[in-house]
Amino acid sequence: MNAKAIIMSHKIKTEWKGKMAFNSSVIGGEVTLDADDAVGGEGNGVRPKALMLSSLSGCTGMDVASLMKKMRTDESVSKFTVDVEGNLTEEHPKVYDKVHVIYTFEGKEMNQAKLEKAVNLSIERYCGVFEMFRQFATVTHEINFIEE
Amino acid sequence: MNAKAIIMSHKIKTEWKGKMAFNSSVIGGEVTLDADDAVGGEGNGVRPKALMLSSLSGCTGMDVASLMKKMRTDESVSKFTVDVEGNLTEEHPKVYDKVHVIYTFEGKEMNQAKLEKAVNLSIERYCGVFEMFRQFATVTHEINFIEE
Repeated sequence: MNAKAIIMSHKIKTEWKGKMAFNSSVIGGEVTLDADDAVGGEGNGVRPKALMLSSLSGCTGMDVASLMKKMRTDESVSKFTVDVEGNLTEEHPKVYDKVHVIYTFEGKEMNQAKLEKAVNLSIERYCGVFEMFRQFATVTHEINFIEE
Repeated sequence: MNAKAIIMSHKIKTEWKGKMAFNSSVIGGEVTLDADDAVGGEGNGVRPKALMLSSLSGCTGMDVASLMKKMRTDESVSKFTVDVEGNLTEEHPKVYDKVHVIYTFEGKEMNQAKLEKAVNLSIERYCGVFEMFRQFATVTHEINFIEE
Protein backbone atom coordinates (compact mmCIF):
# COMPACT_ATOMS: atom_id res chain seq x y z
CA MET A 1 0.00 0.00 0.00
CA ASN A 2 2.77 2.40 0.95
CA ALA A 3 6.54 2.58 1.01
CA LYS A 4 8.29 -0.70 0.48
CA ALA A 5 9.99 -1.95 3.57
CA ILE A 6 13.71 -1.52 3.94
CA ILE A 7 15.46 -4.21 5.95
CA MET A 8 14.10 -3.66 9.42
CA SER A 9 15.92 -4.44 12.68
CA HIS A 10 12.96 -5.78 14.66
CA LYS A 11 9.89 -7.72 13.61
CA ILE A 12 6.92 -8.94 15.58
CA LYS A 13 3.91 -11.01 14.48
CA THR A 14 0.47 -10.63 15.98
CA GLU A 15 -2.55 -12.82 15.25
CA TRP A 16 -6.22 -12.28 16.01
CA LYS A 17 -7.75 -14.92 18.29
CA GLY A 18 -11.38 -13.82 18.04
CA LYS A 19 -13.28 -11.00 19.78
CA MET A 20 -10.58 -8.59 21.02
CA ALA A 21 -7.89 -11.17 21.78
CA PHE A 22 -4.52 -11.25 20.01
CA ASN A 23 -1.38 -13.28 20.40
CA SER A 24 1.89 -11.46 19.72
CA SER A 25 5.19 -13.21 19.02
CA VAL A 26 8.18 -11.11 20.00
CA ILE A 27 11.84 -12.14 20.14
CA GLY A 28 12.09 -14.07 23.42
CA GLY A 29 8.47 -15.01 23.92
CA GLU A 30 4.79 -14.45 23.33
CA VAL A 31 2.35 -11.98 24.78
CA THR A 32 -1.42 -12.43 25.00
CA LEU A 33 -3.36 -9.21 24.49
CA ASP A 34 -7.00 -8.62 25.30
CA ALA A 35 -9.41 -5.79 26.09
CA ASP A 36 -11.88 -5.21 28.91
CA ASP A 37 -15.37 -6.72 28.92
CA ALA A 38 -16.71 -3.18 28.58
CA VAL A 39 -15.31 -2.85 25.06
CA GLY A 40 -16.02 -6.38 23.83
CA GLY A 41 -13.01 -8.24 25.23
CA GLU A 42 -12.77 -10.88 27.91
CA GLY A 43 -9.91 -9.39 29.94
CA ASN A 44 -7.71 -12.44 29.36
CA GLY A 45 -4.57 -10.61 28.31
CA VAL A 46 -2.61 -7.45 28.82
CA ARG A 47 -3.93 -4.14 27.52
CA PRO A 48 -1.87 -3.07 24.51
CA LYS A 49 -1.46 0.55 25.50
CA ALA A 50 -0.19 -0.28 29.00
CA LEU A 51 2.37 -2.51 27.32
CA MET A 52 4.09 0.70 26.18
CA LEU A 53 4.69 1.48 29.86
CA SER A 54 6.13 -2.01 30.43
CA SER A 55 8.42 -1.47 27.49
CA LEU A 56 9.68 1.76 29.04
CA SER A 57 10.23 0.14 32.45
CA GLY A 58 12.12 -2.79 30.95
CA CYS A 59 14.32 -0.67 28.72
CA THR A 60 15.46 1.72 31.43
CA GLY A 61 15.49 -1.07 34.05
CA MET A 62 17.92 -3.11 31.94
CA ASP A 63 20.19 -0.11 31.49
CA VAL A 64 20.28 0.36 35.24
CA ALA A 65 20.80 -3.37 35.92
CA SER A 66 23.71 -3.37 33.48
CA LEU A 67 25.24 -0.19 34.94
CA MET A 68 24.81 -1.45 38.53
CA LYS A 69 26.91 -4.45 37.60
CA LYS A 70 29.58 -2.34 35.87
CA MET A 71 29.69 0.03 38.85
CA ARG A 72 29.81 -2.94 41.26
CA THR A 73 26.79 -1.68 43.15
CA ASP A 74 24.50 -4.58 42.30
CA GLU A 75 25.37 -6.70 45.32
CA SER A 76 24.15 -4.07 47.78
CA VAL A 77 20.72 -3.97 46.10
CA SER A 78 18.30 -6.73 47.13
CA LYS A 79 15.25 -5.35 45.31
CA PHE A 80 14.91 -2.94 42.41
CA THR A 81 11.60 -1.90 40.86
CA VAL A 82 10.63 0.45 38.04
CA ASP A 83 6.98 1.45 38.19
CA VAL A 84 5.46 3.60 35.48
CA GLU A 85 2.29 5.69 35.55
CA GLY A 86 0.78 7.14 32.41
CA ASN A 87 -1.96 9.70 31.98
CA LEU A 88 -4.21 9.02 29.02
CA THR A 89 -5.91 11.90 27.21
CA GLU A 90 -9.70 11.74 26.95
CA GLU A 91 -10.22 12.35 23.25
CA HIS A 92 -9.47 9.86 20.45
CA PRO A 93 -6.79 9.03 19.59
CA LYS A 94 -6.01 8.57 23.29
CA VAL A 95 -2.32 9.05 24.02
CA TYR A 96 -0.14 9.27 27.10
CA ASP A 97 0.56 12.95 27.60
CA LYS A 98 2.20 12.64 31.04
CA VAL A 99 4.33 9.73 32.19
CA HIS A 100 5.98 9.30 35.57
CA VAL A 101 8.70 6.71 36.25
CA ILE A 102 9.42 5.59 39.83
CA TYR A 103 12.76 3.86 40.50
CA THR A 104 12.97 2.18 43.90
CA PHE A 105 16.09 0.52 45.30
CA GLU A 106 16.07 -1.58 48.46
CA GLY A 107 19.23 -2.81 50.09
CA LYS A 108 21.98 -2.42 52.65
CA GLU A 109 24.60 0.32 52.53
CA MET A 110 23.75 1.20 48.96
CA ASN A 111 25.92 3.71 47.12
CA GLN A 112 23.07 6.08 46.36
CA ALA A 113 25.20 8.45 44.30
CA LYS A 114 26.22 5.66 41.93
CA LEU A 115 22.68 4.34 41.64
CA GLU A 116 21.38 7.82 40.84
CA LYS A 117 24.11 8.16 38.25
CA ALA A 118 23.04 4.86 36.67
CA VAL A 119 19.42 6.04 36.45
CA ASN A 120 20.44 9.38 34.98
CA LEU A 121 22.73 7.78 32.40
CA SER A 122 19.83 5.60 31.26
CA ILE A 123 17.42 8.53 31.07
CA GLU A 124 19.78 10.96 29.39
CA ARG A 125 21.94 8.77 27.19
CA TYR A 126 21.02 5.12 26.72
CA CYS A 127 17.33 4.38 26.93
CA GLY A 128 15.80 4.52 23.47
CA VAL A 129 12.27 3.99 24.76
CA PHE A 130 12.68 6.97 27.09
CA GLU A 131 13.79 9.03 24.08
CA MET A 132 10.75 7.90 22.07
CA PHE A 133 8.41 8.73 24.97
CA ARG A 134 9.86 12.24 25.22
CA GLN A 135 8.58 12.91 21.68
CA PHE A 136 4.93 12.61 22.73
CA ALA A 137 4.81 12.96 26.54
CA THR A 138 6.17 14.96 29.44
CA VAL A 139 8.21 12.34 31.27
CA THR A 140 9.14 12.87 34.93
CA HIS A 141 10.84 10.51 37.36
CA GLU A 142 11.71 9.95 40.99
CA ILE A 143 14.29 7.76 42.71
CA ASN A 144 13.56 6.18 46.09
CA PHE A 145 15.95 4.34 48.41
CA ILE A 146 14.79 1.97 51.13
CA GLU A 147 17.60 1.00 53.52
CA GLU A 148 17.01 -2.42 55.06
CA MET B 1 12.85 13.94 42.33
CA ASN B 2 10.61 15.79 39.90
CA ALA B 3 6.98 16.80 39.48
CA LYS B 4 4.55 15.18 41.85
CA ALA B 5 2.31 12.67 40.17
CA ILE B 6 -1.20 13.67 39.21
CA ILE B 7 -3.78 10.88 39.24
CA MET B 8 -2.66 8.72 36.36
CA SER B 9 -4.92 6.52 34.20
CA HIS B 10 -2.60 3.56 33.81
CA LYS B 11 -0.02 2.04 36.13
CA ILE B 12 2.36 -0.84 35.69
CA LYS B 13 4.83 -2.39 38.12
CA THR B 14 8.10 -3.94 37.05
CA GLU B 15 10.53 -5.83 39.29
CA TRP B 16 14.12 -6.86 38.69
CA LYS B 17 14.71 -10.62 38.79
CA GLY B 18 18.52 -10.57 38.61
CA LYS B 19 20.89 -10.13 35.65
CA MET B 20 18.79 -8.47 32.91
CA ALA B 21 15.47 -10.15 33.75
CA PHE B 22 12.38 -8.22 34.83
CA ASN B 23 8.80 -9.16 35.53
CA SER B 24 6.19 -6.59 34.58
CA SER B 25 2.62 -6.59 35.93
CA VAL B 26 0.17 -4.94 33.57
CA ILE B 27 -3.64 -4.84 33.79
CA GLY B 28 -4.67 -8.27 32.49
CA GLY B 29 -1.45 -10.20 33.01
CA GLU B 30 2.28 -10.34 33.46
CA VAL B 31 5.13 -10.07 31.00
CA THR B 32 8.63 -11.48 31.48
CA LEU B 33 11.35 -9.30 30.00
CA ASP B 34 14.93 -10.31 29.33
CA ALA B 35 17.89 -9.36 27.14
CA ASP B 36 20.16 -11.34 24.85
CA ASP B 37 23.12 -13.34 26.12
CA ALA B 38 25.34 -10.89 24.25
CA VAL B 39 24.41 -8.06 26.61
CA GLY B 40 24.31 -10.02 29.86
CA GLY B 41 20.83 -11.51 29.71
CA GLU B 42 19.65 -15.08 29.31
CA GLY B 43 17.11 -14.58 26.55
CA ASN B 44 14.26 -15.87 28.73
CA GLY B 45 11.80 -13.07 28.08
CA VAL B 46 10.67 -10.60 25.49
CA ARG B 47 12.88 -7.70 24.50
CA PRO B 48 11.46 -4.47 25.92
CA LYS B 49 11.90 -2.37 22.81
CA ALA B 50 10.14 -4.90 20.56
CA LEU B 51 7.26 -4.81 23.03
CA MET B 52 6.51 -1.31 21.69
CA LEU B 53 5.79 -2.94 18.32
CA SER B 54 3.47 -5.48 19.98
CA SER B 55 1.68 -2.65 21.68
CA LEU B 56 1.14 -0.96 18.32
CA SER B 57 -0.11 -4.18 16.68
CA GLY B 58 -2.54 -4.89 19.53
CA CYS B 59 -3.92 -1.37 19.68
CA THR B 60 -4.65 -1.07 15.97
CA GLY B 61 -5.64 -4.76 15.75
CA MET B 62 -8.30 -4.30 18.43
CA ASP B 63 -9.68 -1.24 16.65
CA VAL B 64 -10.00 -3.27 13.47
CA ALA B 65 -11.51 -6.29 15.30
CA SER B 66 -14.08 -4.00 16.89
CA LEU B 67 -14.89 -2.22 13.61
CA MET B 68 -15.11 -5.53 11.70
CA LYS B 69 -17.81 -6.59 14.13
CA LYS B 70 -19.70 -3.29 13.85
CA MET B 71 -19.47 -3.44 10.05
CA ARG B 72 -20.57 -7.11 10.11
CA THR B 73 -17.53 -8.16 8.13
CA ASP B 74 -15.95 -10.30 10.85
CA GLU B 75 -17.62 -13.55 9.81
CA SER B 76 -16.01 -13.51 6.36
CA VAL B 77 -12.52 -13.24 7.89
CA SER B 78 -10.99 -16.51 9.11
CA LYS B 79 -7.53 -15.11 9.89
CA PHE B 80 -6.32 -11.60 10.61
CA THR B 81 -2.73 -10.69 11.44
CA VAL B 82 -0.94 -7.42 12.18
CA ASP B 83 2.81 -7.71 11.77
CA VAL B 84 5.08 -4.80 12.60
CA GLU B 85 8.64 -4.11 11.51
CA GLY B 86 10.76 -1.43 13.14
CA ASN B 87 14.08 0.02 12.06
CA LEU B 88 16.36 0.85 14.98
CA THR B 89 18.88 3.68 14.69
CA GLU B 90 22.52 2.79 15.34
CA GLU B 91 23.53 5.46 17.84
CA HIS B 92 22.44 5.62 21.49
CA PRO B 93 19.71 6.23 22.41
CA LYS B 94 18.51 3.73 19.81
CA VAL B 95 15.01 4.54 18.61
CA TYR B 96 12.67 3.28 15.91
CA ASP B 97 12.88 5.82 13.11
CA LYS B 98 10.90 3.80 10.53
CA VAL B 99 8.01 1.49 11.31
CA HIS B 100 5.99 -0.58 8.85
CA VAL B 101 2.66 -2.21 9.73
CA ILE B 102 1.36 -5.13 7.65
CA TYR B 103 -2.36 -5.97 7.92
CA THR B 104 -3.31 -9.33 6.38
CA PHE B 105 -6.86 -10.63 6.08
CA GLU B 106 -7.65 -14.18 5.01
CA GLY B 107 -11.17 -15.31 4.26
CA LYS B 108 -13.96 -15.97 1.80
CA GLU B 109 -15.78 -13.24 -0.13
CA MET B 110 -14.39 -10.54 2.13
CA ASN B 111 -15.67 -6.99 1.74
CA GLN B 112 -12.26 -5.50 1.08
CA ALA B 113 -13.52 -1.91 0.93
CA LYS B 114 -15.00 -2.19 4.42
CA LEU B 115 -11.89 -3.85 5.82
CA GLU B 116 -9.68 -1.13 4.33
CA LYS B 117 -12.00 1.45 5.83
CA ALA B 118 -11.66 -0.21 9.26
CA VAL B 119 -7.85 -0.12 9.01
CA ASN B 120 -7.85 3.50 7.90
CA LEU B 121 -10.23 4.56 10.69
CA SER B 122 -7.87 2.97 13.21
CA ILE B 123 -4.79 4.62 11.72
CA GLU B 124 -6.31 8.05 11.23
CA ARG B 125 -8.71 8.40 14.11
CA TYR B 126 -8.73 5.82 16.88
CA CYS B 127 -5.37 4.21 17.54
CA GLY B 128 -3.55 6.14 20.23
CA VAL B 129 -0.41 4.03 19.91
CA PHE B 130 -0.25 4.84 16.19
CA GLU B 131 -0.54 8.53 17.08
CA MET B 132 2.29 8.23 19.62
CA PHE B 133 4.51 6.40 17.10
CA ARG B 134 3.96 9.15 14.53
CA GLN B 135 5.69 11.57 16.92
CA PHE B 136 9.03 9.76 16.64
CA ALA B 137 8.89 7.57 13.52
CA THR B 138 7.80 7.51 9.92
CA VAL B 139 5.02 4.94 9.98
CA THR B 140 3.91 3.23 6.78
CA HIS B 141 1.46 0.38 6.25
CA GLU B 142 0.15 -2.12 3.77
CA ILE B 143 -3.05 -4.16 3.61
CA ASN B 144 -3.07 -7.65 2.11
CA PHE B 145 -6.04 -9.87 1.28
CA ILE B 146 -5.81 -13.62 0.82
CA GLU B 147 -8.96 -15.14 -0.64
CA GLU B 148 -9.41 -18.75 0.42
